[in-house]
Amino acid sequence: MTHEAGIPLGIRFKLLSDTPQDSAAQVVGDVVIGDHRDLDTLRAFARGCDVITFDHEHVPIEHLRALEAEGVPVRPGPDALVHAQDKGVMRARLQAIGVPCPRHRIVRDPADVAAFAQEGDGFPVVLKTVRGGYDGKGVWVVGSAAEAAQPFLAGVPVLAEEKVDYVRELAANVVRSPHGQAVAYPVVESRQVGGVCDTVIAPAPGLDEELALKAEEMALTIAKELGVVGHLAVELFQTRDGRILVNELAMRPHNSGHWSQDGAVTSQFANHVRAVLDLPLGDPRPRAPWTVMVNVLGGDYPDMYSAYLHCMARDPQLKIHMYGKDVKPGRKVGHVNTYGDDLDDVLERARHAAAYLRGTITE
Amino acid sequence: MTHEAGIPLGIRFKLLSDTPQDSAAQVVGDVVIGDHRDLDTLRAFARGCDVITFDHEHVPIEHLRALEAEGVPVRPGPDALVHAQDKGVMRARLQAIGVPCPRHRIVRDPADVAAFAQEGDGFPVVLKTVRGGYDGKGVWVVGSAAEAAQPFLAGVPVLAEEKVDYVRELAANVVRSPHGQAVAYPVVESRQVGGVCDTVIAPAPGLDEELALKAEEMALTIAKELGVVGHLAVELFQTRDGRILVNELAMRPHNSGHWSQDGAVTSQFANHVRAVLDLPLGDPRPRAPWTVMVNVLGGDYPDMYSAYLHCMARDPQLKIHMYGKDVKPGRKVGHVNTYGDDLDDVLERARHAAAYLRGTITE
Repeated sequence: MTHEAGIPLGIRFKLLSDTPQDSAAQVVGDVVIGDHRDLDTLRAFARGCDVITFDHEHVPIEHLRALEAEGVPVRPGPDALVHAQDKGVMRARLQAIGVPCPRHRIVRDPADVAAFAQEGDGFPVVLKTVRGGYDGKGVWVVGSAAEAAQPFLAGVPVLAEEKVDYVRELAANVVRSPHGQAVAYPVVESRQVGGVCDTVIAPAPGLDEELALKAEEMALTIAKELGVVGHLAVELFQTRDGRILVNELAMRPHNSGHWSQDGAVTSQFANHVRAVLDLPLGDPRPRAPWTVMVNVLGGDYPDMYSAYLHCMARDPQLKIHMYGKDVKPGRKVGHVNTYGDDLDDVLERARHAAAYLRGTITE
Repeated sequence: MTHEAGIPLGIRFKLLSDTPQDSAAQVVGDVVIGDHRDLDTLRAFARGCDVITFDHEHVPIEHLRALEAEGVPVRPGPDALVHAQDKGVMRARLQAIGVPCPRHRIVRDPADVAAFAQEGDGFPVVLKTVRGGYDGKGVWVVGSAAEAAQPFLAGVPVLAEEKVDYVRELAANVVRSPHGQAVAYPVVESRQVGGVCDTVIAPAPGLDEELALKAEEMALTIAKELGVVGHLAVELFQTRDGRILVNELAMRPHNSGHWSQDGAVTSQFANHVRAVLDLPLGDPRPRAPWTVMVNVLGGDYPDMYSAYLHCMARDPQLKIHMYGKDVKPGRKVGHVNTYGDDLDDVLERARHAAAYLRGTITE
């Protein structure tokens, strides 16, 4: 999707991909198949690149530091990216710059989890491995110390957090360039199902204007203080008592910004590319009163073709984004965007299409 | 641009290109460098393609017929495409189906041109080689038989046409699928400078609704009667006496439809791909009251980078589409789209950006 956004800007990509089946590898011209965890692979790949950016956070920080030391522009740089890779580092840093977070601390073992619970309102407690989690993986909600053994098995430090009493999840997406220009997308509501993002509504319905502004400012502050270059997604909890707490950070175009492809003047992908190349940023404002994104998850039936036809025929305004992935149950294989004046209608159209593509409804 | 539109649809391209420098060859993954005039090259290329389509009209019709006879789906097919390749065939066919055209006939030599002039309102007369012309090439406006020698030198049949007294040029863009679904984009005004499209305004300002409807119906009729599959652009003259006459046909995404990338719910490129694959078509309606496209021509200075920065910084809503071509004076190297509620503002922004990129203005 970043390649797609780069085409009109005249920006050409060279891609390092694990496999030729990777979504990006299917559409980019210049593809190197290799392991992003291998420094020599990264070094060879970096030759001839003006700048390096990412569509995931899993390139080892020490390798990025090595590349940077050798003069390769890496954006976002390792000093920023470490906050998206390591939840312990992120929490410590956000606390230091005064950004409100859930109560948290690194815990050593199940007994320490019990101690953490007692320091606050008790169980349940959320446990997260500080590295390697995504889409609900590496996250546990435990009701007692007895349930808290598993997170410690991987040998990765474990972060304990209070289970926040939230009314909904929000996301503040911002983009920042090396020379410090920054833009903020409208704050969106993000609905998760089973720990996986399901629906994003832009802007977040009924969000108090002051709270929205606070969330945008918070994201812009984080981007600046952490030295982020490119897209930063700040996942937020809106608490029952009217506060906003940071849940997670992502430093790349993010699922909570996919709506912008069809709903904003400039998509998150285009602005990420512009930022990474230190080009002036594009207008992040919405083009329609409401835009809804719903993820398309794989269903039981591997061939989506007839569902795809049906959805296009049913709704000629539907914007389908398929990733060219093999369909597996529960796997994100695409998303749909809809936009318009009436939120109920926009929501229904996106949900219907995603459910039809997944095969959970048949009309 | 068609590849770009195919990415979200999950559609993967294989490209036959003359050179690796070709715009499409810079961004498509699977590129074959070869000569589109060579049947064996086409045959080898066609293996493994589900369907073949075009971004120009220059593949020899006899080769397309051979491929079709061998079972390769070619869309638009040669029986349709011949009307976009040969202006003599096109005029005869449009006349047969009752579509209004300028007065015309094939002429043998300068004396015959004089006879053609006398049959109507005299000189000037427009002469066109029936094949191989584009962007004003292969077209002459002659004031006398003495001026009419050159068009006959190429040995290609020459079509004479009355010089139409038109107030402006319009274009009706439609897309038709194999199963007969068709959509019509709003009729646009197309302004030419030196025979080259300069500005397109969507929709055509102040166009009488009845005339707009007539133009759309005319384009839909042509698409149906000629068996077009994919995008059809019908370039039109709006005459001083209130008629609409067909100027040219193009059977591919067309410069007069580039506005749709940022101005319509579904772009001409997306709908061309959808039509060619017999997928349901997308909504062609505009997203903004006004969208303006201005072509970016190369100027004297080959490096557009700082102009590109300036334009992005000046207008964060500007949609730039660069083709990755080397800059040569007068060469189409990109286009810009702008949209909004106020036509004067939208026009000014697009014109300013295009002129700045070309280097004809410096602020």
